[in-house]
Amino acid sequence: MELVQRMLQGDQRALARLMTLVESRGPERRRIMSEVYPHARRTRVLGITGPPGAGKSTLADRLVSRFRGRGLRVGVLAIDPSSPFSGGALLGDRIRMSRHSGDRGVFIRSLGTRGNRGGLARATREFALLLGAYGKDVVIVETVGVGQTELDIMDLAHSVVVVFVPESGDVIQTMKAGLTEIADVFVVNTADREGADRLVAELRAMVEIDPQRADREIPVLMTQAFKDVGLDELDDAITRHWQYLDSQGDGWEDQAFVDELRDVLIEQVRDNLDRSVRDAAQVRALIAAEGFEADNPYLVAERIVADRGLAARLLLDHEGSVDDN
Amino acid sequence: MELVQRMLQGDQRALARLMTLVESRGPERRRIMSEVYPHARRTRVLGITGPPGAGKSTLADRLVSRFRGRGLRVGVLAIDPSSPFSGGALLGDRIRMSRHSGDRGVFIRSLGTRGNRGGLARATREFALLLGAYGKDVVIVETVGVGQTELDIMDLAHSVVVVFVPESGDVIQTMKAGLTEIADVFVVNTADREGADRLVAELRAMVEIDPQRADREIPVLMTQAFKDVGLDELDDAITRHWQYLDSQGDGWEDQAFVDELRDVLIEQVRDNLDRSVRDAAQVRALIAAEGFEADNPYLVAERIVADRGLAARLLLDHEGSVDDN
Repeated sequence: MELVQRMLQGDQRALARLMTLVESRGPERRRIMSEVYPHARRTRVLGITGPPGAGKSTLADRLVSRFRGRGLRVGVLAIDPSSPFSGGALLGDRIRMSRHSGDRGVFIRSLGTRGNRGGLARATREFALLLGAYGKDVVIVETVGVGQTELDIMDLAHSVVVVFVPESGDVIQTMKAGLTEIADVFVVNTADREGADRLVAELRAMVEIDPQRADREIPVLMTQAFKDVGLDELDDAITRHWQYLDSQGDGWEDQAFVDELRDVLIEQVRDNLDRSVRDAAQVRALIAAEGFEADNPYLVAERIVADRGLAARLLLDHEGSVDDN
Repeated sequence: MELVQRMLQGDQRALARLMTLVESRGPERRRIMSEVYPHARRTRVLGITGPPGAGKSTLADRLVSRFRGRGLRVGVLAIDPSSPFSGGALLGDRIRMSRHSGDRGVFIRSLGTRGNRGGLARATREFALLLGAYGKDVVIVETVGVGQTELDIMDLAHSVVVVFVPESGDVIQTMKAGLTEIADVFVVNTADREGADRLVAELRAMVEIDPQRADREIPVLMTQAFKDVGLDELDDAITRHWQYLDSQGDGWEDQAFVDELRDVLIEQVRDNLDRSVRDAAQVRALIAAEGFEADNPYLVAERIVADRGLAARLLLDHEGSVDDN
């Protein structure tokens, strides 16, 4: 595709256009991603997550400055906090970190989710690949929240920074047990505020007792992002985690490939199904034509899968897609 | 299945056992759900969501008392706040609303999510169906948070109560635009605290300007759940919403059927794929056998779908499942 070629040669408008095509889940998406993938393998994806108001954007902003200072090209994907409800219309592509907006080495994009629930992690992954192919050395993915969707998104990050503020104590209590599963670095931001020391101590104790951490260090750092305090230490901790990953060899990549393949296959089936089973009238017609019992979706699904021709037509066919859309 | 028959006859241990089977995603799950579905259609699913600490559990507890007072049988599904991280191990099946725990008309269960990310909404739906088949008139689904996963879960609720406290102002600002999409009733809890009036006014203004609400009322209520203040009004508002749904006829149910069918089909393909494409060694063997280009999952996925025999084997076959597990 010409658009992909232009993007690979550094055309930022081509990149933006490809992102729009991928986000709109058009039929070109698979071809775009297939062409982009081989060019995107060396990018580091850095996740930053935590509750609203923890200062994630400011931390991201400070890290961007440091990465840029070392000559790294940086992309930022902001998972729009308003998106589950508004589809991202409020923020849209608005550039959030305005002081980097004039820097050609930084590309910032926010992601919405209208009509794409459950697909947000997938779209984020695809955007990260696009940014990698475009030449970014680091892609920062910033998500608000500490829920399941955020965890799904963080699955695609090579390194994850989990940010709290002293007031987050209650949140942490409810999710203590497995936080260390996703965090590679903990940050207590606004560390000049009451309760920061206690929170750091709690997080350190939590890290200590996690049996999964045996082979790796999970630093607990204090920052004051607004005053740029503690950011060098965070930058160092992230760099050390990248070195750790490099030392681990390709086993991780093998599993990432399998996960990616499964995701792509499921996504493709879902796309096909969204087109082939669209509305109630169509389903009623199908049920009548095949003589299925009508009011039990579990039974209908079983009959569909048992009939290979029908299953292939509904779940695998996608020839229509290019014309349809 | 004998277990299903026992559950339908009111055996609570059979219900609990079926829930465990469904939650563990064993091969029996589809058959269980297929048998259960026809018995579960008349149950009301009531979602209660909002940020941590908003008092959702207390509100749910008060509503349970009122529903029970009218002779309704009630199930409660608590989406464990610790679950994304801990797999629910902290709370597990612990009964949270202890004063209802001796009441045979109330069944309370919490859901964890270990190894089941993205499948939580699905599992909740299946639990609600099981509770419906068991004879519950109302199933309350309580989720913590206001993220995407919570929205996915709320998709399955017939009525959704969104709960805030006066301190939630900031949270609401970031997601204002589309909150009315999911809320059927807004509640400002701890309404004796500073800022409650302002929050109620803001929510009312938000409801007013939403173009989607034209045909329906979205009440904004004040409660003090702990003191049992405002709960009768909430109970009334929920009842009115049920009456509204009844007046809308079956169009809604038609679409629910289509959504359910799509979900069940996708879930089945995902189960099959999890078995057929398990690890990197297996994928490497597949790639070698078929002569696919190895390092591009998009290309491999395309080749798989293009080869109908192979696609059926990987995505549709599930004969192995009964023996495998």
